[in-house]
Amino acid sequence: MFKFIENGSVTSVAGIKATGIHSGIKRKRKDLALIVSDEPCNVAGTFTLNKVKAAPLLVSQELINKGGKVRAILVNSGNANACTGDRGLNDALESQKYCAEKLGIDQSEVVISSTGVIGEYLPMHILKTGIDSIVGQLTYTDGIKAAKAIMTTDLVEKTIAVKVQLSKGEITIGGIAKGSGMIMPNMATMLSFITTDAEVESTLLKKILLKSVQNSFNKISVDGDTSTNDMVVIMANGVSKINIEENTEDSNLFFEALQTITIELAKKVVVDGEGATKLITVAVSGCENEEDANTIAKTISNSPLVKTAVYGSDANWGRILSAAGRSGVDFDPSKVEIKFDDMTILGKDYYHEFDEDEATEILSKKEITISVNLNSGNGSSTWWTCDFSEKYVEINASYRS
Amino acid sequence: MFKFIENGSVTSVAGIKATGIHSGIKRKRKDLALIVSDEPCNVAGTFTLNKVKAAPLLVSQELINKGGKVRAILVNSGNANACTGDRGLNDALESQKYCAEKLGIDQSEVVISSTGVIGEYLPMHILKTGIDSIVGQLTYTDGIKAAKAIMTTDLVEKTIAVKVQLSKGEITIGGIAKGSGMIMPNMATMLSFITTDAEVESTLLKKILLKSVQNSFNKISVDGDTSTNDMVVIMANGVSKINIEENTEDSNLFFEALQTITIELAKKVVVDGEGATKLITVAVSGCENEEDANTIAKTISNSPLVKTAVYGSDANWGRILSAAGRSGVDFDPSKVEIKFDDMTILGKDYYHEFDEDEATEILSKKEITISVNLNSGNGSSTWWTCDFSEKYVEINASYRS
Repeated sequence: MFKFIENGSVTSVAGIKATGIHSGIKRKRKDLALIVSDEPCNVAGTFTLNKVKAAPLLVSQELINKGGKVRAILVNSGNANACTGDRGLNDALESQKYCAEKLGIDQSEVVISSTGVIGEYLPMHILKTGIDSIVGQLTYTDGIKAAKAIMTTDLVEKTIAVKVQLSKGEITIGGIAKGSGMIMPNMATMLSFITTDAEVESTLLKKILLKSVQNSFNKISVDGDTSTNDMVVIMANGVSKINIEENTEDSNLFFEALQTITIELAKKVVVDGEGATKLITVAVSGCENEEDANTIAKTISNSPLVKTAVYGSDANWGRILSAAGRSGVDFDPSKVEIKFDDMTILGKDYYHEFDEDEATEILSKKEITISVNLNSGNGSSTWWTCDFSEKYVEINASYRS
Repeated sequence: MFKFIENGSVTSVAGIKATGIHSGIKRKRKDLALIVSDEPCNVAGTFTLNKVKAAPLLVSQELINKGGKVRAILVNSGNANACTGDRGLNDALESQKYCAEKLGIDQSEVVISSTGVIGEYLPMHILKTGIDSIVGQLTYTDGIKAAKAIMTTDLVEKTIAVKVQLSKGEITIGGIAKGSGMIMPNMATMLSFITTDAEVESTLLKKILLKSVQNSFNKISVDGDTSTNDMVVIMANGVSKINIEENTEDSNLFFEALQTITIELAKKVVVDGEGATKLITVAVSGCENEEDANTIAKTISNSPLVKTAVYGSDANWGRILSAAGRSGVDFDPSKVEIKFDDMTILGKDYYHEFDEDEATEILSKKEITISVNLNSGNGSSTWWTCDFSEKYVEINASYRS
């Protein structure tokens, strides 16, 4: 149905240039990314629900919600421009305007985004010099450089792209993301920027993006904290001339491809979680409805007790059942079944005779699926989380110093 | 108004005998506690909201809600008798009946409670031999032994007692608790048993207990998990002959004393949190209403990012503000003020010029108060939490092994 592009990213999509450079906001590493489309794009976005919102996020959210076309996404790392008041808002608008001028486009065509330290003003001189420089370095191949430039505590850049065969021809979707799993308000944040050459009207684009994000970035958890700067933005430039209409087989295929993109990027975020050693898929089923399944999957994914047990390869089903029990969802615990991969750890009526060595072997793998079946309906939900190691505490205890 | 009794506990109260012994459920440490009143007692209790409830909890909850009088509380540690189905329920009832027979009282006069490993059947032969033995060892002074016998991962026993001067004379309230802060479903649990010689009708007793627990045990957090076995029970034997009527100055004093007892016990639980090195008081004020203040205080108290920052003595106000921001409460972040003890870390309009060394000095203390003022109303709420160290992960990664 669709195929992954090796080393694919936002620039795998026709008509998209990008790159990432070191401007000087950070001491050494890349800190400025720019993604530019040759053609005006329909655009959609989702934004943090945190009441504390960074200045660039407020600017971009307003711009995208207006529904106009955009051409560029400018992202800096190293400084979040959050909790910076009126001056921060002016800085955000000025950087947007400056970038637009250098690109010869309208200010309203530039989405802006920041990630990094909270409570410090943007170094505007450095940023402008960076914009002067990056505009001349854009290429049709350097999406991975852009992915590197939006990193903060991330250990690896996160990129992906797929080609999708639709009824009228082939389209491409490419994406980059950052976030070292734990969505740190002080220096990290979850960001993702996605491009496609499909022609998608912006209301439909938003609908499909929201649904994809709901099943991917909104179902990952490293420690339950969310940031002032989180955003996911998709630009559709229509260069393929392949139009996607609502409620068609093509729109279903496009949604599935976009969801694959966002799930894969979300999993990369989880795997790169601070101190994470394992990717845990939490698949909850048999609930009365999807909402219940989601609540239980979220509670299990956020439980430090479950996460430390998996880190220690300890088949501690009691912690999983108890996390479900405190989720607020009503259910009959004696009907619950729990599996690690294909191995039943807890059967109905609390039956739990299992081979501890075999369970430990499963839990020692890099990727584990914990399935929880309530046997009480058809509601299901899947979340992704990581384990919790001493390294997490070490990283976060001394972060600002 | 009231004074603390040195080394006070449940047996500081007239007419209360107790002790704790090693019966053999655990390998070496004390594992069986019994508290017995000479006179029948009015009783009230609060119980876990976890949907997975242990057998003894179900038995005691039903008994207490019936409103009859009780004489004894039997508690074992080392085995939770949770997730044990019908056999677990029968074992719970049988231990209750056996204990009643040995004490020469009615089965309905014995409250039972368990804490320890989930999913294993009670060793009934060992437990009965233990009951045979403990009944003959009760004294009017050994409340601390009972406190030791209900411990699991706790490092120290938790006991307290106060004398309260009422209009008609003096009454005493004493209590014991266990829980090593993180409320572990697999082996720990939050339990507290309180006695008083005041004469309090059971409906009023329940009302006062619920309010006290609401402001103490329900406002502590180590990692957000709650257990299958949590319960708080108070027995009032009326031996002082001092009656407490509703809506009187005496009932206010009694409430304040009971709340002091439960807050002090709750703080002892937090301080004994797994891997905890500091007690953090989170005082949220200036909210539109108390519910908002409570939601924000709870979210800050549960944030691993805030807790690791305090562990590292890092004055990371961004994490505190961001935790408030993701709590779901609507507020204006630019009006928020944050203090560590008396030192302002964040002023209105994100003002945050402060002496880092001084802030680090405050955060290096064993007890810290984080005050968050939203400057938007009169709602306030105080929670207690601890910091989060590598030790927590170490303890919980290898718990069952």
